[in-house]
Amino acid sequence: MTQSLIAEIFEPLQSMRLIDPHTHINPLQAASSTLADILGYHYYTELAHSAGMPKVRIEEPGISPKEKVGRLVPWLATIENTAQYSWLLEMCQVFFDFKDDRITEANWESLYDYSLKKMQAADWEQTVLERTGLDQVYLTNDFDDPLIGFDTRKYVPCLRTDELVFHLTQPVVRERLQKATGVNPGNSGSLKRAIGILFDHFKKHGVRACAISLPPDFSPTMITATAADGVVAKVFSGLELTTDELSVLSRFVFWSLAEFCVEHRLPFDLMIGVNRRVYEDGVFQGLDLFDNRVSLIQYKALFNAFPQVVFPVSVLSETSNQELVSYSWIFPNVVTCGHWWYSNIPVYIERDTRARLQAVPQTKQIGYYSDMYKLEFALPKFAMYRRILAKVLAEDFVAGRRWSVAKAVSLGKNVLRGNVEAIFGKYE
Amino acid sequence: MTQSLIAEIFEPLQSMRLIDPHTHINPLQAASSTLADILGYHYYTELAHSAGMPKVRIEEPGISPKEKVGRLVPWLATIENTAQYSWLLEMCQVFFDFKDDRITEANWESLYDYSLKKMQAADWEQTVLERTGLDQVYLTNDFDDPLIGFDTRKYVPCLRTDELVFHLTQPVVRERLQKATGVNPGNSGSLKRAIGILFDHFKKHGVRACAISLPPDFSPTMITATAADGVVAKVFSGLELTTDELSVLSRFVFWSLAEFCVEHRLPFDLMIGVNRRVYEDGVFQGLDLFDNRVSLIQYKALFNAFPQVVFPVSVLSETSNQELVSYSWIFPNVVTCGHWWYSNIPVYIERDTRARLQAVPQTKQIGYYSDMYKLEFALPKFAMYRRILAKVLAEDFVAGRRWSVAKAVSLGKNVLRGNVEAIFGKYE
Amino acid sequence: MTQSLIAEIFEPLQSMRLIDPHTHINPLQAASSTLADILGYHYYTELAHSAGMPKVRIEEPGISPKEKVGRLVPWLATIENTAQYSWLLEMCQVFFDFKDDRITEANWESLYDYSLKKMQAADWEQTVLERTGLDQVYLTNDFDDPLIGFDTRKYVPCLRTDELVFHLTQPVVRERLQKATGVNPGNSGSLKRAIGILFDHFKKHGVRACAISLPPDFSPTMITATAADGVVAKVFSGLELTTDELSVLSRFVFWSLAEFCVEHRLPFDLMIGVNRRVYEDGVFQGLDLFDNRVSLIQYKALFNAFPQVVFPVSVLSETSNQELVSYSWIFPNVVTCGHWWYSNIPVYIERDTRARLQAVPQTKQIGYYSDMYKLEFALPKFAMYRRILAKVLAEDFVAGRRWSVAKAVSLGKNVLRGNVEAIFGKYE
Repeated sequence: MTQSLIAEIFEPLQSMRLIDPHTHINPLQAASSTLADILGYHYYTELAHSAGMPKVRIEEPGISPKEKVGRLVPWLATIENTAQYSWLLEMCQVFFDFKDDRITEANWESLYDYSLKKMQAADWEQTVLERTGLDQVYLTNDFDDPLIGFDTRKYVPCLRTDELVFHLTQPVVRERLQKATGVNPGNSGSLKRAIGILFDHFKKHGVRACAISLPPDFSPTMITATAADGVVAKVFSGLELTTDELSVLSRFVFWSLAEFCVEHRLPFDLMIGVNRRVYEDGVFQGLDLFDNRVSLIQYKALFNAFPQVVFPVSVLSETSNQELVSYSWIFPNVVTCGHWWYSNIPVYIERDTRARLQAVPQTKQIGYYSDMYKLEFALPKFAMYRRILAKVLAEDFVAGRRWSVAKAVSLGKNVLRGNVEAIFGKYE
Repeated sequence: MTQSLIAEIFEPLQSMRLIDPHTHINPLQAASSTLADILGYHYYTELAHSAGMPKVRIEEPGISPKEKVGRLVPWLATIENTAQYSWLLEMCQVFFDFKDDRITEANWESLYDYSLKKMQAADWEQTVLERTGLDQVYLTNDFDDPLIGFDTRKYVPCLRTDELVFHLTQPVVRERLQKATGVNPGNSGSLKRAIGILFDHFKKHGVRACAISLPPDFSPTMITATAADGVVAKVFSGLELTTDELSVLSRFVFWSLAEFCVEHRLPFDLMIGVNRRVYEDGVFQGLDLFDNRVSLIQYKALFNAFPQVVFPVSVLSETSNQELVSYSWIFPNVVTCGHWWYSNIPVYIERDTRARLQAVPQTKQIGYYSDMYKLEFALPKFAMYRRILAKVLAEDFVAGRRWSVAKAVSLGKNVLRGNVEAIFGKYE
Repeated sequence: MTQSLIAEIFEPLQSMRLIDPHTHINPLQAASSTLADILGYHYYTELAHSAGMPKVRIEEPGISPKEKVGRLVPWLATIENTAQYSWLLEMCQVFFDFKDDRITEANWESLYDYSLKKMQAADWEQTVLERTGLDQVYLTNDFDDPLIGFDTRKYVPCLRTDELVFHLTQPVVRERLQKATGVNPGNSGSLKRAIGILFDHFKKHGVRACAISLPPDFSPTMITATAADGVVAKVFSGLELTTDELSVLSRFVFWSLAEFCVEHRLPFDLMIGVNRRVYEDGVFQGLDLFDNRVSLIQYKALFNAFPQVVFPVSVLSETSNQELVSYSWIFPNVVTCGHWWYSNIPVYIERDTRARLQAVPQTKQIGYYSDMYKLEFALPKFAMYRRILAKVLAEDFVAGRRWSVAKAVSLGKNVLRGNVEAIFGKYE
C-alpha cells in the first residue's frame, strides 16, 4: 500500500520542471567536459581521501582528466555505501547509459570513453538541462563578476558576499573591490558607496539574491558609521586589524548588505554554521567542518531590524533544524531553505522535511537546492529529495491525516518550486 | 498488520479518561465563547502573522470576535499543512459538526454561526469535558490568584512562579506580592516569609505543583541569606539592580521555592529553555523563542540539593531530550514531562517518546499535557499524542519486543494517566 | 516483505563470530559467578535506584549476592519497558533457560538457583564465549596492570589513560605510576619517560589501543616541554595545582599519549563527552552524566597534528553524531566507533547507524562494542545492534537503493567485524 502510494505522489513531483535556487555553476561552462569534472566534485575527493587516498594522487600538477579518474576509481569501493556514491551511479546510468551497479577498475575506462563522447556533443549542456527539467539555475557570483556572456534569465546571478564581510583584510580582495567599483574606501561612507555600486551592477543583471555563508560564532549587530570609520580606514591602509576590529568590520559590512537588500528588494540567503579550514591538509574544497554549538538567537537583532528583507536560512548542523523551524514559524521574514552540505543526506533531509511540513507555513519553505558545481548533479540530488518528499507526504499527510493525493502533491509542488518563484521573484 | 495493531492499541488509550497536568485554562471561563477564542490561540495567530498577516489586522482595538475570525481565515490556506491546523480541523469536526476538510472564505461564516450556537449552550463547558473525557485540568495560577469561584478538585491549582523569580524588579509585581501577603520584604527573611504565605494560601486550595519556565542561561545555585539580604532590600526600595544582582535575586528566590516544595511536599515543574521577547513585534504571546545551547548540567546543584522534591522537567529544544532521558535515568527526583511548545509536533513527540520508553523507568514519565488556554484543545492535542504513543508501543514493544497488546496498553495507560496521579497525588 | 527481508539480512549477521573492541571485562574472572554479577551491572542498579530503590538496599556491606538480587527484583517491574531490561531477559532466556517474560518476586529465586548451577560449571566462561561467538574481547586496562595470567590474544589489552591525564593530582595515582615504571618524574622529560615505559610494557603484551574518556570541556593542544616542566615538578612534589595548571598538565600528558601512539602504531580511542560525579549520591558507577554542548572542533589541533594516528571516536551525546559523521568524512584519521552508554539504546543506534552508512566510507566504521563488565552481556547487546543494522540495511540499501541482499550483508559484516580487524590489527 504505502509503496504504491509513495510512487503515486512521486510521479507528478518527478515530472515537474525545476528551478535550482542555489548552485556554484559556472554559466560559461555549466556542464561537465569529462568524468573528471564529476568525480572531481569535492564530495568524492574528500571521501576517497578520507578512506586513504593521498591527496597528491589527484592534486598532482599536470595529470590528465582521465588519469585523475583512473586514480580515484580504486577508492570508490570504499565509499559505495554513501549517498554521494548513489548520485554518481545515477548520473552514469541516466546520462551515460551505464548498466553496471559498480564503477570498478575493470569497467571505468569504457565508461570514461563513452561519457566523453556524450559530453563532447555540442548540445550537451542543453541535453542535461532538458533531461533534468531545469528551467533556471541560480549562481554564486563573486562580487566582481562581470555577469556577461550568459543568459541571466536562465543562469540567475546571486551576489555572494563572504569576501566582503570576512576577507577585506586580504589585499587582493580590496584591490578587486577597488577595481570593480572605482572607489578606494577610506571610511565607512565610501565603503558603503562601493558596495552600493556592486548592488547596482548586480541589479542591472537580474540578481535574485544576496548570499553569504557564516561561521558558527558570527552574531550580527548594527555598527554605527562612526564606530566603523576608523576600522575601515585602517584596513584599507593595509594595516592589520585586531580580532575586535575584525569583528567590527565584519558586522558593519554585513549590516550594510542587509540595508542594500532593503533598498534593492532582495532576499538575503544566510548559510549558517561553517568553520573554514578545519582540516588543513584536506583536498581542494575539503577543509571545512562545523560546530553544532550555534543558535539562531545570534540573529535576533538582524531579524528584528530588517522586517522588509526575506532571509532564506540554511543551517549546516542538523541540530539547528528545530530552531530554524521555530524561527520560521515566528518571524515573518525567516524562511527555511534546503538541506545544506553535511545535512544533505537522506536521514537528515527526511527529518528536517517532516518537521518543516508539520510546523512552518507552506508558503515559507524552499524545499531544496543542489549546491552543484556541474549541471549533471541536479538530477540525482533532486531525485533524492523528491523521493523523500514523496515519502513524507504519503506517510504524514495522506496516510496520517487523510489528505487526498492531489492535495499532498500540490503541497509538494509548492515546496519544490512554487515557493522558489514566489520568494525569489516570478520566472519571466 | 501494523496498522491494525496500532489501532488495537490506540482504542483503549483513546477511550481512557484523562488528567491534563499542565494548562493555562481560566477556570472561570474554561471553554471558548466564540471561534475567536479558538483561532485566537497564539499558535494560529503566530503562524498567520508569519505567513504574512499584519499583526494589526487582528490586534486592532474594538474588532468583534467574528471580524477577527474573518480576518484570520484567508491566511489559513498558508498553514493547512501544519499540525496546529490539524488540531483546528479536528475541533471543528468533533465539536461543531464541520464536514469540510478546509476552512475557507466560503465556509467559515456558517461554521462561525453554528459553533456560536453550540458554545452558547449553558452546559458547553460540561459537554467539552465529557466529550474529551477530562477528569481534571491543572491550572497555571498567578501567585496572587485568590483561587476562589471554582472547584479546585476539577481545576487544580498550580503555583506559577516566573514573576517571583524573574520580575520582582517590576513595581507592579512587588505591589501584588505585598498586597497578596501583607508583607513588605526588606531582606531575605521577610521575602521568604512572603513566599511562604503564598504557599500556605495555595496549599489550602489544593495546589498540586509549583511551576516555572526558565531561560536557557539560568543555572540555579544556593544563595545564602546574607548574600541575598542587600539585593532584596535594594529591589524592594525600588532601586535598579545590576545584572549580577539580578542573578543573585533570581537564584535566591528560585532556591527558596524549592525549599518550600520540600516543606509542602510539592512537585516543582521546570520548563527549561525559553528566551522571552525574541521577536519584538510579534503577535500577542508570539514573541518567544529558544536557544538550543542549554544543558541539564546547569541543574546539577539543584537536583543534588533537593532529593525530596520531584522535578517534572519539560525541555523546549528537542536537542535536550536525550539529556532529559539520561538525567531521569540517573536522578530519582527527575521525571520526564510532556512535549513542550516548539517540541509539541509529531516528529519530535515520536522520537522523544521512543527514547523515554526505551530508557526511563516507566513510573517516571508524564506522557503529555495540553498547555491549552481553552478546553476544546485537549481533545485534538491528546489525540495526536495517543496516536503516536500507540504507534511506538505497537512498533517497539509488540512487534519489536513481542509484548502482548495488553501489556503494551498497560504501559501506555501509565504514561498517559497513571503516572500523573502517582506523581502529583491521587485523584480524590 | 520488509520483515522477511530484514530477517534474511539478519541471519548471516547473527551467525557471524565477533570481536568486541571495547569492554571492561576482568580477564581473570570474565564470566558472571552469580545473577548478582548481572543484575549488579550499573545500568540496572541506576534504573532501580532512579525508580525509588534506596542505594543502601544494595550497597549495604556484607549482603550476599542472592540477598542483593532479591532486593533488586521488586524494582524490575518499574523498568521492564527499558532496553536494558530486554537485555536481562534475553540473557536469562538464552543462558539460563528462563521461560517467563518477566522476572518477578515469584520466580526470581528459582532463576537464581538454576543460573547459579549453570555458572558454577567449570567451562562456563567458555560456554558463554562459544554461545556468543566471541573470538576476541578487548579490555580496559589500568596503566599499571601487570597483564599476566590470561591469554592476551583472546583478551586483548588496551591501555586506559584517564588516570594519567586527569588524576596525577591524586597521590595514589602518582605512587602507582612510580611503582609501575621505577621513575619518579620531576619534569616533563621524566614524566614522558615514565609513560614510555608503560607503553613498552603494554606493547610487549599485545596492546591494541590506547583509550581515554574525556569531559565535554576538554580541548587538547600541544604543550611545550618548557611549559609543562614546572607543572610536572609541582604536582609530583605533592603541591596543589591551580585550574590553569591542571589544564596544562592534562593537555601535556594527553598530547604525549598521542605521540606514543605514533611511535607504537596504536589507535587512540577517544570517548568524548562524559561529566563525572554529577549525581553525587548515585549508586556505584551511577554518578556520571553529560553536557550536550560539546563539539569535535575542540579536537581540530589534535586531528591535524597526528595524521598517522587513527582515532576511533565515540560520542556520548546523540547530538554529536552528525559531527562525528562529518569529521570522519573529512579527516582520514577519524573513524566512527560504536554507540556509547546513554546513546546505546535503539532509537539513537538506528539513527546514528543510518547517518554513518549514508556518509562515511564503509572502511571507517566500527559498528559496535558492548562496553560490558561481564561476558554474558555481549550476546543481547550485539543482538540488539545486529537487529538494527539488518533493519537499516534492508530499508536503506536493499529496498531504498536496490542493492542485492548479498551486497548489503557484506557491508554489514565489514561494519560489524571486518573493520575492527583492519583498524585494530589482524586477528592472529
